[in-house]
Amino acid sequence: MSTASATKQAIKGGEFLIRDTAAAEIFIPEEFNEEQRMIMQQCRDFLSKEVWPRLDEIDSMKDPKLMPSILDKAGELGLLGTSVPQELGGFGMDFNTTMLVAEVIGAGHSVAVALSAHTGIGTLPILYYGNDDQKKKYIPKLATGEWKAAYCLTEPDSGSDANSGKTKAVLSSDGKHYIINGQKMWITNGGFADVYVVFAKIDNDKNLTAFIVEKSFGGITMNEEEKKMGIKGSSTRQIFFNDCKVPVENMLSERENGFKIAVNILNIGRIKLGIAALGGSKHTTSIATRYANERKQFGTSISSFGAIKHKIAEMATRIFASESAHYRAGQNIDDAYHAFVAAGTDSSKARLKALEEFAIECAILKVHGSEVLDFTVDEGVQIYGGMGFSAEGPMDRAYRDARINRIFEGTNEINRLLTVDMLLKRAMKGSLDLMTPAMGVQKELLAIPDFGAAEEEGVFVKEKKVLANLKKAGLMVAGSAVQKFMMKLSEQQEILMNLADMMIEVYVAESTLLRVEKIIGQKSEKAAELQKEMALIYLHQAVAKAAAAGREAISAFAEGDEQRLLLMGLKRFTKIDAYNLKDARRKVADYVIEKGEYPF
Amino acid sequence: MSTASATKQAIKGGEFLIRDTAAAEIFIPEEFNEEQRMIMQQCRDFLSKEVWPRLDEIDSMKDPKLMPSILDKAGELGLLGTSVPQELGGFGMDFNTTMLVAEVIGAGHSVAVALSAHTGIGTLPILYYGNDDQKKKYIPKLATGEWKAAYCLTEPDSGSDANSGKTKAVLSSDGKHYIINGQKMWITNGGFADVYVVFAKIDNDKNLTAFIVEKSFGGITMNEEEKKMGIKGSSTRQIFFNDCKVPVENMLSERENGFKIAVNILNIGRIKLGIAALGGSKHTTSIATRYANERKQFGTSISSFGAIKHKIAEMATRIFASESAHYRAGQNIDDAYHAFVAAGTDSSKARLKALEEFAIECAILKVHGSEVLDFTVDEGVQIYGGMGFSAEGPMDRAYRDARINRIFEGTNEINRLLTVDMLLKRAMKGSLDLMTPAMGVQKELLAIPDFGAAEEEGVFVKEKKVLANLKKAGLMVAGSAVQKFMMKLSEQQEILMNLADMMIEVYVAESTLLRVEKIIGQKSEKAAELQKEMALIYLHQAVAKAAAAGREAISAFAEGDEQRLLLMGLKRFTKIDAYNLKDARRKVADYVIEKGEYPF
Ligand SMILES: Cc1cc2nc3c(=O)[nH]c(=O)nc-3n(C[C@H](O)[C@H](O)[C@H](O)COP(=O)(O)OP(=O)(O)OC[C@H]3O[C@@H](n4cnc5c(N)ncnc54)[C@H](O)[C@@H]3O)c2cc1C
Ligand SMILES: Cc1cc2nc3c(=O)[nH]c(=O)nc-3n(C[C@H](O)[C@H](O)[C@H](O)COP(=O)(O)OP(=O)(O)OC[C@H]3O[C@@H](n4cnc5c(N)ncnc54)[C@H](O)[C@@H]3O)c2cc1C
Repeated sequence: MSTASATKQAIKGGEFLIRDTAAAEIFIPEEFNEEQRMIMQQCRDFLSKEVWPRLDEIDSMKDPKLMPSILDKAGELGLLGTSVPQELGGFGMDFNTTMLVAEVIGAGHSVAVALSAHTGIGTLPILYYGNDDQKKKYIPKLATGEWKAAYCLTEPDSGSDANSGKTKAVLSSDGKHYIINGQKMWITNGGFADVYVVFAKIDNDKNLTAFIVEKSFGGITMNEEEKKMGIKGSSTRQIFFNDCKVPVENMLSERENGFKIAVNILNIGRIKLGIAALGGSKHTTSIATRYANERKQFGTSISSFGAIKHKIAEMATRIFASESAHYRAGQNIDDAYHAFVAAGTDSSKARLKALEEFAIECAILKVHGSEVLDFTVDEGVQIYGGMGFSAEGPMDRAYRDARINRIFEGTNEINRLLTVDMLLKRAMKGSLDLMTPAMGVQKELLAIPDFGAAEEEGVFVKEKKVLANLKKAGLMVAGSAVQKFMMKLSEQQEILMNLADMMIEVYVAESTLLRVEKIIGQKSEKAAELQKEMALIYLHQAVAKAAAAGREAISAFAEGDEQRLLLMGLKRFTKIDAYNLKDARRKVADYVIEKGEYPF
Repeated sequence: MSTASATKQAIKGGEFLIRDTAAAEIFIPEEFNEEQRMIMQQCRDFLSKEVWPRLDEIDSMKDPKLMPSILDKAGELGLLGTSVPQELGGFGMDFNTTMLVAEVIGAGHSVAVALSAHTGIGTLPILYYGNDDQKKKYIPKLATGEWKAAYCLTEPDSGSDANSGKTKAVLSSDGKHYIINGQKMWITNGGFADVYVVFAKIDNDKNLTAFIVEKSFGGITMNEEEKKMGIKGSSTRQIFFNDCKVPVENMLSERENGFKIAVNILNIGRIKLGIAALGGSKHTTSIATRYANERKQFGTSISSFGAIKHKIAEMATRIFASESAHYRAGQNIDDAYHAFVAAGTDSSKARLKALEEFAIECAILKVHGSEVLDFTVDEGVQIYGGMGFSAEGPMDRAYRDARINRIFEGTNEINRLLTVDMLLKRAMKGSLDLMTPAMGVQKELLAIPDFGAAEEEGVFVKEKKVLANLKKAGLMVAGSAVQKFMMKLSEQQEILMNLADMMIEVYVAESTLLRVEKIIGQKSEKAAELQKEMALIYLHQAVAKAAAAGREAISAFAEGDEQRLLLMGLKRFTKIDAYNLKDARRKVADYVIEKGEYPF
């Protein structure tokens, strides 16, 4: 099922900011093959049969066995073993195929959360960090769903600051067990999991260590199910470890390596969360569009009103754009994995290294995907009017369930901060040369603007110029901020947020343009007419957002002449010709409305 | 309690767009007197005693008598009779004092909705349109809460299109009753109301007629309580009228006058909804700030992080700005009322005429207040992190309850459309001269920019220039759009939305500047330091929003040279000097954090 090609040039994480990527280099969802489309259909069938008809029942939590039984069904269908190699009882799919599964299942509300916690943060620590014995013992059972998994990192006093947990592990006097004591919180699947990956500190260690803990080890008690705003059918528990005896052989990886595990696993979770959010967004858009077609006011379907078309087009556009970025990054991760394996790295390590390489993109996509979802469900409610507020319509659940995504797997604030932090760290370590292009931009700033010679011909020539400038804007603002604050930049979170917004918009806008360019190359300009409109709509908004963020940042750190120079540069680098976005949106919306669902 | 002054120049609704208002002309919340502050305190005491400790109980709806009994308590305290003249058993407060009550009670979740439905859309149709007999019969009982009221306009097929209802009223053969048949939906207080204001069509009338219907008339049945996303403690019912016999003397106002009543009453409801939303926003900001002070991560209160300060400052700023606009409009309404009464209009009619005069502002404030609330609760959830998603923390309810406000009293889409529609209608009728200043702007566009002579001295001199320009931008875009589409502008809802956004920002930004200018005049620049920062923060964002909206609109209707000219004009009219908003926000946030609550 591999779509990787050994001839591809190795692409580095974060490099998008300083590198011109060619359309041919990126994978686009249009390229998914028949087999992958069949897997998507299977996932859809699973939702239609097992999940969507029972959403109320699932959320009622009346039958605590319901969710595990649905996971069992998913296991039977092979949905829990997508990331697991065949020799461990799974399907060893490419990363991007597992993304596809996550996307479709993402429309499964509480089930999506339970399933992804099991296959992601529950299973992957063992898969990627376990030794052979651990993998053999746990992974096959997790891949089928015979055992269910949960991930115990958060504590009452340790959330965003994950490494500050107080849960303790102490070696027993006979040296055979670690005795774990402490309290974990917000544990998804906590109520029914058989296996917990638990993070604790051995003695007075500075860093966490990870353990594989079976429920059957004893010493585990829990509070009632948390009452939550949404994903009410997803089990969330507070878990207490009281002298829980964990055999020493159940330590995962090495002592004090837990924080790294936690971070890397969350990292995978982030891009998966992003794509799952897009699955939810597509489903919501489809439902809302159908309602808009059916609902009549003032003698006509409300989908005929410009205000509603605007919403539908924005929903579709943001999904399309975000999706472009997700599968682009997914393929990068796959390609990097194959390259590492080809170079002799073992498979698990290669996966991890590939994911770590694209950690910046994962953080970006977590933020972007979850925010697209929030936008979509909010407009979904609004399109439904009063019925959007009814617990008997679909939008209430969509709205409440969506809200968690900006909070878990690292809040969006933490992920924005991380985006910039990781970029700058790579620049400092020299693994990503931001300096040279940033200095280039500084020079260009002082030079007389080059208004170019004759225009080149081709798709998106103008737009790519805009994009190249947008990157310059990002580099310019980031470079100047770094120069100004040096090591103290971390105290300027507002500026870091501005920078993150610029990076996010660059990455998503570029991915969208490249996707459409590639479709046009493969088919024709005509065949990608609406996709082109979406790319333009997105680009215009990306430029506006980045310009606003840049302006805020510059005003916050530069004064006098420097400020004037930077603001002028920003203006130059965020220039974009006016475009009739209203007409573009109407075209896009009309098609979505005609199809009665998200059609791209 | 009147704060009106007979010498004030009569101000027209919508005129803010074309008129320079002086700070002295507007009322500011800082001017509320001792008596009014005592009333606020009473309302707060009521919430602290009767509502906040019982939010779960109220929302559970286990005891259907609980909400009516809380309304009874409110009645005993006089909170239900604020708008009712003394001779009818109320307190005859100024409009702005009733706004103050609505604001504080606005933090009462479901109780706020029940109370405002009773005193507003339930009581006011009778108070303002009833004849003497009707008023004498119903108002005193409603003012004490002995009887509870509901308002039955919406039907399954008639929501935004309120005049399309199918409920029928037919005169009985003896001419003594109207027999009402039909189905109403989403009726707040439906479950326990004694009196319903019901809108129905007599025979085959084009327009609705309003009736006062007592539950005791019979022929009224209802469905179970609607299950809703939020305000779960507020009774919401579907109500069926089956040969409900209403005495002819219970027709309200005249036949076919119902739609007008509906519109005018909703209109009052709008500004009240806006200010109630701000009451909720203040409460939410206070709670979130306290949490941010208490919650520690990375060894420090999260309120010390720039990302959190940004949120707190934005919450406070938007509330402060919106509040400025609400009480400004409230006082305008009071002043207009007094002027009408002085000119011999009877009190009820004067109230209505005053409110109708400021219908544009009411629509603006409904949109703005509800959107400030949504922003505030969303950030409130985010500040709480995982606890924001817990049904046991305060933010879950705040988030769910808030969402209705963009839907009822006319959706925000409908209110945005109305804002522009009403403005243009007044311009066409000649009651508001938009043409002359719009033409002035057109001329200015073609002239060489006047960069002014020596700068004047004074508070906000520069900012007022910015504001004056912002008005020009609004007039320019609106004027050109009207010229372009003429009567077909209504088909260009997206452009109307852009225009509405420009109007909204002009009104709120101006109100904020004038408020702070007035505070400075009354006290000192030093005393209003933070308020000044908020005015600047708001102004900067208002300009950015208006510029973006203007650009979208222009790109959607103008081409070639015209487009270039308009875009250039827009740029000129939305120019604003860079300002360090980060530092401004930190100053504001630090104060809010220090006080541990919304302090302005
Ligand atoms: C339904 C649900 C399921 C969950 N499932 C799991 C699970 O299975 N396993 C697990 O281990 N955890 C789980 N979590 C926990 C989740 O990962 C945390 O809630 C999340 O990491 C945020 O931590 P917190 O709640 O402690 O918020 P806090 O860390 O207290 O954050 C509060 C606010 O402060 C901000 N903030 C914090 N630090 C900084 C900083 N340095 N700079 C700027 N802003 C900052 C945050 O962005 C946020 O806005 C779950 C949570 C929920 C609600
Ligand atoms: C909890 C609750 C309490 C309520 N209480 C009362 C009450 O006490 N009494 C009462 O009479 N009603 C009440 N309502 C009804 C409320 O006023 C309506 O829900 C509201 O007016 C919207 O109407 P609708 O639900 O039919 O939505 P629709 O009118 O169907 O609107 C659906 C969508 O279409 C959009 N739309 C509609 N027309 C247009 C147009 N011409 N142009 C552009 N967009 C358009 C809307 O903005 C919305 O986005 C209540 C509703 C709720 C949910």
